[in-house]
Amino acid sequence: MTAAGRMPLYVDCDTGIDDALALCYLVASPEIDLVGIGTVSGNVSSALAARNTLDLLALSGASCPVAVGAAHPLAGRFTEGAAHVHGDDGLGNHPLPAATTAPVEGDAADLLIALAHEWAGELRILAIGPLTNLAEALRREPRLPELVRDVTIMGGAALVPGNISPVAEANIGNDPEAAALVLAASWPVTLVPLDVTLSNPLLEADRMRLLESGRPVATALGGMLDFYFDFNATFYGERRSALHDPLAAAIAVGAVVPAVAPRVQVVVDTTGGPGRGQTICDLRGRFLGFPDQPGAHVRVVLSLADDFAPHLLERLLAL
Amino acid sequence: MTAAGRMPLYVDCDTGIDDALALCYLVASPEIDLVGIGTVSGNVSSALAARNTLDLLALSGASCPVAVGAAHPLAGRFTEGAAHVHGDDGLGNHPLPAATTAPVEGDAADLLIALAHEWAGELRILAIGPLTNLAEALRREPRLPELVRDVTIMGGAALVPGNISPVAEANIGNDPEAAALVLAASWPVTLVPLDVTLSNPLLEADRMRLLESGRPVATALGGMLDFYFDFNATFYGERRSALHDPLAAAIAVGAVVPAVAPRVQVVVDTTGGPGRGQTICDLRGRFLGFPDQPGAHVRVVLSLADDFAPHLLERLLAL
Repeated sequence: MTAAGRMPLYVDCDTGIDDALALCYLVASPEIDLVGIGTVSGNVSSALAARNTLDLLALSGASCPVAVGAAHPLAGRFTEGAAHVHGDDGLGNHPLPAATTAPVEGDAADLLIALAHEWAGELRILAIGPLTNLAEALRREPRLPELVRDVTIMGGAALVPGNISPVAEANIGNDPEAAALVLAASWPVTLVPLDVTLSNPLLEADRMRLLESGRPVATALGGMLDFYFDFNATFYGERRSALHDPLAAAIAVGAVVPAVAPRVQVVVDTTGGPGRGQTICDLRGRFLGFPDQPGAHVRVVLSLADDFAPHLLERLLAL
Repeated sequence: MTAAGRMPLYVDCDTGIDDALALCYLVASPEIDLVGIGTVSGNVSSALAARNTLDLLALSGASCPVAVGAAHPLAGRFTEGAAHVHGDDGLGNHPLPAATTAPVEGDAADLLIALAHEWAGELRILAIGPLTNLAEALRREPRLPELVRDVTIMGGAALVPGNISPVAEANIGNDPEAAALVLAASWPVTLVPLDVTLSNPLLEADRMRLLESGRPVATALGGMLDFYFDFNATFYGERRSALHDPLAAAIAVGAVVPAVAPRVQVVVDTTGGPGRGQTICDLRGRFLGFPDQPGAHVRVVLSLADDFAPHLLERLLAL
């Protein structure tokens, strides 16, 4: 526990709009202390993700070490990010006041390893971008799985289509080799896939509550979401947004409890074939109520007990 | 139309228990005439599948040319079949009277090509085993897609797990290279995947109706199903059976109409990776009501309008 009696949490992110929601949610969450944040290229470059993260922390009145992480996936090169989803600036083309703070020395993998030693046996990891930094940290510190308490990942698609290919979700599909290493490592993993993030959306009425709250963080988030709603409408058929990263955050801190979340074998397709980037989850036990598989250490969240949006709004509006 | 005013249908099968249900259903179906049957190695060897098919036709009082087809998939070797699913004899270890008829000369691909020319523009194909014979026929007669009216395939898994791997269904997974060729050919294809075959089962009460009907075909099928129910119970959690092949047959003859069946891009994973044999269907339009994709010629059946088992029983009990 930290001095405040909270769980220490390291977050790895590619701060985009839903990452912004997740970070603000975490600042508002009494269960955890943010002890460090690393950034990775995904929605935007890792450098821009660090700027966005620092600006959001400053706006929220929070601070913690922020380290710039991997610029490129383990295989291939990061090129363009997802400006059509998150805007050119990653935050819906909705500028925030520029923070005066700067990233720490060293990269995200260095920060994660240092924190894992500082909080040995206690540190929790929330990864809401491609898993490049976690894979790099595993390479540099093979004892990492023993030092870390657990890992929660927003990523993958189990029994629903992907979002960057018919079967691949963006965080996993943007660095399948890293995801394969992270999911194979011997730490307890909770995977929060599209199965559950797409079915728990934020609606326009929710967005208006944020925008019109008169509170600076909520108002800024409501403004950013305007752009995200436009993109999400292309596949939802109406203006709303998925809550990928904040839902993973809420599950990581224990505030949202999955209803169906079996521990099953999960492998990542790292071929060059049409399934590249897919999280292949063995859910053949579906008619038996999705029993856990012996030896599996990855829990795949398939449904929630309660609606998520009201809980998210409550915390964001309290900031 | 045939002399009886019916649609000419060629069936390609690996006669197993659910193939037996499908063949008897087709004999009882007034919409079609069975003009030829080819066999392929899958549930059992293509040679045994031909024996089982001839025995079933004789028991049902029907006859048509039966040709033995491919013994092995395009890549690799057929080894053992699925005796744990269908019994050592493919028919639940439930011997039928041995027919006096014999397979025709030539193989299944030859028979299919001859029938496609004989019934040019009219012939429909129902494939309920691995797609080796269809792929071989496409190789020998590149005009086949122009000659055939349409193809209905029992196979694949779109938004549900597979049955021989976490993502691969047996008919596709036992010859992915053949499936890739058949799904890429320019004929209209209806794919009937596990999504819909597993959710429309036959229950023990249904089986007892067959077994106790006093009618020879239905009684034999009810007997075979005893073995199949035991296997199916391992994943359903109770004695019942999937209706894979008879459902595809009913859709092929037009007696069962799909409720949701979008025309979408479908590719088969032919890599050596963990997704080998998966039918990757682009169903990212799910929130928009599964619209057809421009240029797609494969219709993927995701749900039915009505329960299937009552219709199947009605026809089988009329034999």
